[in-house]
Amino acid sequence: MRFELTILGSSSAIPTMDRNLTSQVLNINEKFFMLDCGDGTQLQIRRQKIKFQRINHIFISHLHGDHFFGLIGLLSTMQLLGRTNGLNIYGPKGIDEIINMQLKITGSYFKFPVEYHFLASGKSERIIEGSDFYVDAFPVKHSIEAWGFLFSERHLPRNIKKSFVKKHDIPIDQFDKIKAGADYMANGKTYPNEEITEDPPEPRSYAYCSDTAYSEDIIPYIRNCDLLYHEATFADDKQKEADEKLHSTAREAGRIAQKANAGKLLIGHFSARYKKLEKLLEEAREEFPNTHLAVDGKTYKLPVKKG
Amino acid sequence: MRFELTILGSSSAIPTMDRNLTSQVLNINEKFFMLDCGDGTQLQIRRQKIKFQRINHIFISHLHGDHFFGLIGLLSTMQLLGRTNGLNIYGPKGIDEIINMQLKITGSYFKFPVEYHFLASGKSERIIEGSDFYVDAFPVKHSIEAWGFLFSERHLPRNIKKSFVKKHDIPIDQFDKIKAGADYMANGKTYPNEEITEDPPEPRSYAYCSDTAYSEDIIPYIRNCDLLYHEATFADDKQKEADEKLHSTAREAGRIAQKANAGKLLIGHFSARYKKLEKLLEEAREEFPNTHLAVDGKTYKLPVKKG
Repeated sequence: MRFELTILGSSSAIPTMDRNLTSQVLNINEKFFMLDCGDGTQLQIRRQKIKFQRINHIFISHLHGDHFFGLIGLLSTMQLLGRTNGLNIYGPKGIDEIINMQLKITGSYFKFPVEYHFLASGKSERIIEGSDFYVDAFPVKHSIEAWGFLFSERHLPRNIKKSFVKKHDIPIDQFDKIKAGADYMANGKTYPNEEITEDPPEPRSYAYCSDTAYSEDIIPYIRNCDLLYHEATFADDKQKEADEKLHSTAREAGRIAQKANAGKLLIGHFSARYKKLEKLLEEAREEFPNTHLAVDGKTYKLPVKKG
Repeated sequence: MRFELTILGSSSAIPTMDRNLTSQVLNINEKFFMLDCGDGTQLQIRRQKIKFQRINHIFISHLHGDHFFGLIGLLSTMQLLGRTNGLNIYGPKGIDEIINMQLKITGSYFKFPVEYHFLASGKSERIIEGSDFYVDAFPVKHSIEAWGFLFSERHLPRNIKKSFVKKHDIPIDQFDKIKAGADYMANGKTYPNEEITEDPPEPRSYAYCSDTAYSEDIIPYIRNCDLLYHEATFADDKQKEADEKLHSTAREAGRIAQKANAGKLLIGHFSARYKKLEKLLEEAREEFPNTHLAVDGKTYKLPVKKG
């Protein structure tokens, strides 16, 4: 099962030569989720050869333009490419107005259904209950109301050992029972569950936190996540600016990852002032060694976790 | 004096791997004019290393999203980069609402003055009177109200021959008079104007026509222009679709250039269905040999025209 994140944009506020505005696509077992959608995101999707129409869920973290100005263009292109399947947009109240007003003034409309899901103010909330995954939104700390998102796989049933399946003609109706923990009985013999099954892969999780100041309040929501994306707009040299603008430094991102016991940290949302990012990486790694830079166009795969 | 056009995007409706959404920048003697502003235009400006803040005039041809969705992002970046000088936006009514509503919902505002100039319905109009150039807007034929734009240099005064200036100590107050056609008198001798001056360069002009169906009604507005950009969304194979959608074929663009006696034709706004554009170029050239393809990132210079 795939669980991988592709960075479409890692720049904060304004784009640079190498870094586009914030957007990413998470692929969980061929379900595609978009996180934020800065200006020009559709160009990036095209360049990364991600299929537009496979994206059925878009999450907008907050209403600063560098996180959503690309949404209307992306939706329009989905329409022009003949989309019929529904699209779910999770975000702050107002995101619907931004889209609908532009449709109204341009005298256009979408032929596919768009459903808006407004995020709850000041509290965490389960926003998607999938059969094999779920998504939670939670408040982060920024200059306007903003949210983070946590994507979690569900626990899988136990795996029946292949060697056992090959040797025994297990009736179909017994499969789910054994996976759920039952013993298997055949020809008067009992095969204990622990002998004929093995642990399933551990569920994986991804937490997205952008934009946010350093805030330990988010730790309960993201604790033990396998991959954490945390904004790191500034280096230590701009700690004051980070505090004032309610953004984080790379070091603070590292500290959150360390305190939350994350598996791996990806830092992004870099200020355009930093042409090179080594300093940010070093500072974050002093707090949390398994830190990596978000790079536009790069895909970060979470391997299957053996149980 | 520079007179050059840089193509930022040449794709219609949706972007492709090589072609961005419509936008271009015209440089007339270091004054920068932006024509349309599709999604992601600010990324293109950055890549082409055009200085954001040098653009003081933006022209929006019509309210289809692929021609203006990038405007809010561009303006926001101008703001973030500390812009103070005013910006003029020429476009249909409603373009102001699109910007202002997004500012309102995001709780933001521009610290620099933005002035909107709404285009007159159904008629041509002088929209800028510069000291050395002027700009006219004129109606084109599309599925919604749309405009073309004509940029024209003014006639320059005559040049005094350098050899004459070197030999004679002409008083400063005489310069403008001679340039305007007066003879020069010194030491009782008269130097006839036609002997001491030479013709100035001829004024150059650029006409932008996108989006538009084939329409001979536009010819009076663009007649004899040096460079014509005319949309060529389709090849001959999609004539019916061109007619239905009020777009042009490349051949029709060529025919307009030929009938308008343009100096050079640039075709663009290509449908994403055409991976290669040779066919469009060939068909346009059958009507108007001096046709060229608009290529993203390419600059087309109009040389000084000797009088």
